[in-house]
Amino acid sequence: MLKERQGSSNKAINIGLLGFGTVAGGVYRILKERGKEITSMLSAPVEIKKIFTRGSRNLFPESAKSLAVKDFGDILNDRDIDIIIELIGGINPAKEYIIKAIESGKSIITANKALLAEYSEEIFKLCLKNNVHIGFEAAVGGGIPILRSIKNGLAGDSIRSVYSIINGTSNYILSKMTKEGGKFNEILKKAQEKGYAESDPSLDINGVDSAHKLVILGRLAFSASISMEDVIIEGIKDISQLDINFSKELGYIIKLLGILKNEDSKIEIRVHPTLIPSSSLIANVDGVFNAFFLNAGYAGPLSFTGYGAGSLPTASAVIGDLIEIAGKLIHNDKHHDLILSEKFNKIRIKKKKDIISRYYLRFSAADRPGVLAKISGILGGHSISIASMIQKGRQVKGSVSIVITTHEANEDELLNSIKECDGLDVVSAKTVVLRIEDIEDKL
Amino acid sequence: MLKERQGSSNKAINIGLLGFGTVAGGVYRILKERGKEITSMLSAPVEIKKIFTRGSRNLFPESAKSLAVKDFGDILNDRDIDIIIELIGGINPAKEYIIKAIESGKSIITANKALLAEYSEEIFKLCLKNNVHIGFEAAVGGGIPILRSIKNGLAGDSIRSVYSIINGTSNYILSKMTKEGGKFNEILKKAQEKGYAESDPSLDINGVDSAHKLVILGRLAFSASISMEDVIIEGIKDISQLDINFSKELGYIIKLLGILKNEDSKIEIRVHPTLIPSSSLIANVDGVFNAFFLNAGYAGPLSFTGYGAGSLPTASAVIGDLIEIAGKLIHNDKHHDLILSEKFNKIRIKKKKDIISRYYLRFSAADRPGVLAKISGILGGHSISIASMIQKGRQVKGSVSIVITTHEANEDELLNSIKECDGLDVVSAKTVVLRIEDIEDKL
Repeated sequence: MLKERQGSSNKAINIGLLGFGTVAGGVYRILKERGKEITSMLSAPVEIKKIFTRGSRNLFPESAKSLAVKDFGDILNDRDIDIIIELIGGINPAKEYIIKAIESGKSIITANKALLAEYSEEIFKLCLKNNVHIGFEAAVGGGIPILRSIKNGLAGDSIRSVYSIINGTSNYILSKMTKEGGKFNEILKKAQEKGYAESDPSLDINGVDSAHKLVILGRLAFSASISMEDVIIEGIKDISQLDINFSKELGYIIKLLGILKNEDSKIEIRVHPTLIPSSSLIANVDGVFNAFFLNAGYAGPLSFTGYGAGSLPTASAVIGDLIEIAGKLIHNDKHHDLILSEKFNKIRIKKKKDIISRYYLRFSAADRPGVLAKISGILGGHSISIASMIQKGRQVKGSVSIVITTHEANEDELLNSIKECDGLDVVSAKTVVLRIEDIEDKL
Repeated sequence: MLKERQGSSNKAINIGLLGFGTVAGGVYRILKERGKEITSMLSAPVEIKKIFTRGSRNLFPESAKSLAVKDFGDILNDRDIDIIIELIGGINPAKEYIIKAIESGKSIITANKALLAEYSEEIFKLCLKNNVHIGFEAAVGGGIPILRSIKNGLAGDSIRSVYSIINGTSNYILSKMTKEGGKFNEILKKAQEKGYAESDPSLDINGVDSAHKLVILGRLAFSASISMEDVIIEGIKDISQLDINFSKELGYIIKLLGILKNEDSKIEIRVHPTLIPSSSLIANVDGVFNAFFLNAGYAGPLSFTGYGAGSLPTASAVIGDLIEIAGKLIHNDKHHDLILSEKFNKIRIKKKKDIISRYYLRFSAADRPGVLAKISGILGGHSISIASMIQKGRQVKGSVSIVITTHEANEDELLNSIKECDGLDVVSAKTVVLRIEDIEDKL
């Protein structure tokens, strides 16, 4: 239970910090630099009392060294610590620490998207039960106040769709491939050297990191119970320069998008490389920027862009949560975010096979008369209608590329037709299938 | 004082609505359409109990007619009414109504930017004293949750600059002039016919409406006491097609911007037509869209765009405030927004004469040898250095246009030099002076 703080409103708010990586370093720095302003705002000082990390303390500034503790228990059992900021990341041991902290009445701030995507319902329930607050703005979109905008600003609105760029590493790689050319692996290697990609970038490039964030976003946007199993996830590692170039020729740019759609409570939630019009605003969000393009029933089209990662932008979001929660503790306010209420809307998640989309198809086919007729015949037989066709480029190992874009088609039908095409003796490699979204976000 | 509501948390929250114009109609509609969801979210119904308007009731839907009351007193003295939504606009009688409502313990939601720009300090003080809540997200940026993002999301950050497009009418007119050509007056007339401009558009096109919003934004962004007198205000009515075309040639687009800058607590706050790079994102925000491009010390560059006006977008922001305040009332939470605290930072407002900017100058000069030498001599004498020069076009009444852009210069020096130039017998009309901002907002 929250300690009663009335009558002692200028008692310090004490923080236990878990982890001391990039983001935690940023939090420490902002509190050092802005401590006076924050204290004045809240009429009470906000101080990091203890720091627990199992990793190296190399990043610790001299002034932080005396705050280091050896065990999580030193923070958990410290009755003066009001708020735990968890910046360890990953499921274990972060989950155990957070649960124990909540059970001992401490409020939580976390940037842990993996944990929230998998366990937010359990964690939120526990927060309600133990009457503690939780802030997690930093888990999605770094310094962009997107969660707050959705859960508070648009609380009464109905969100119809969200197109998002929520993984900086993937966006950096695709932007480089699009603007400067080059192979996926080479650019990834350079990104790692520059610190734009992690040494193990798999969660970034396979779409799972985006999916984690999209699940959190979707729960807030639709007040719905959504889990990782509901997300269609495809990463960027198979995107070739060839497909980027053909897309350009067709007026499209390939981006890894996180997509949410809600039509009559039938929800689509998917992460995949997507062809979007080169002229759209979101196609021009490059490098490590994140972006959210929402369509709200009443507010209409809304966009938010900014740094989606990095020490200080993410720390800025943590500090925003910290000031909000510290304010609530100081005023002994037990009113929780409505999102914790678990009053979920009834929704149905669309299965992959039920998705309707436009598609980009690249066939590797023998350069012989009649091939196009065979392919288009199969597509037609599955009621898939062709919007455009390109056949050009030189033969590679006796094959040429035939690129077809379709009008809207059912994914199940489409994949069946591709299976049939890939069985033709004139088709020499697995056909590339990408989805097209004709986003109209012109301002 | 707030009524104690504990133990009766599913008692309805009752609203008194002041005004029934475009935005109020939107609020009424959203509450009709989304009432069930909102009730479920809050565990209590939120209902409009009474509507007071001195205007016509033509816009009233049939279902609202029974709610109409003849006097404001019918709402003020109704002890069951918890929240007043003021959508009358203007200073009088809105100010009187709001003050009386606060003094009788009712919380306030308002979209009244003129009132808040002039009297927010007085009103906020009264809210604190009477322990009531106030929401005003709808006053700036329509459906864009910009105030919430600044006052909560970026609460601990330090905002360095804001470039904003916050007047749809002006932006619509300038966009049309830029894209399709045409004279200011003709386009304004068409905009009025289409309902994009009011029958009296003076506050929109003279920059005062933008200034109202910028003052509200500046107070939140800098936690500073800022008043209308602090704002440099110039409108768009003197922008000619000639200047739009010369700007294009120089790689710029003219927009009416609201600008905030904070450098070492020296604050610039100004509204004026501004040349910005055609390639910048904000230059591409057209028509009735609003946009905010922030640079935050920690979060970095952030952008927000969306509809800045209109019935439903603005009503969506009102409803967001309503849900937040209703939630606080239901949970008997007396914790106020930090912005009400009046803990203002010490700042100094930069005087117009101290501004440093780049400038666009269009001289109307005789088409004679030596004219340019005279003008550039005068500029040089005031330490104003020239960045580019265009002289072309046909003579108009014996004059030609000489367009000069300057490097950074002090405004006082610049205006003195222009006064001197305008005294030359070869200069035949008042020189046009516009400011240039080389915004770099590329994502």
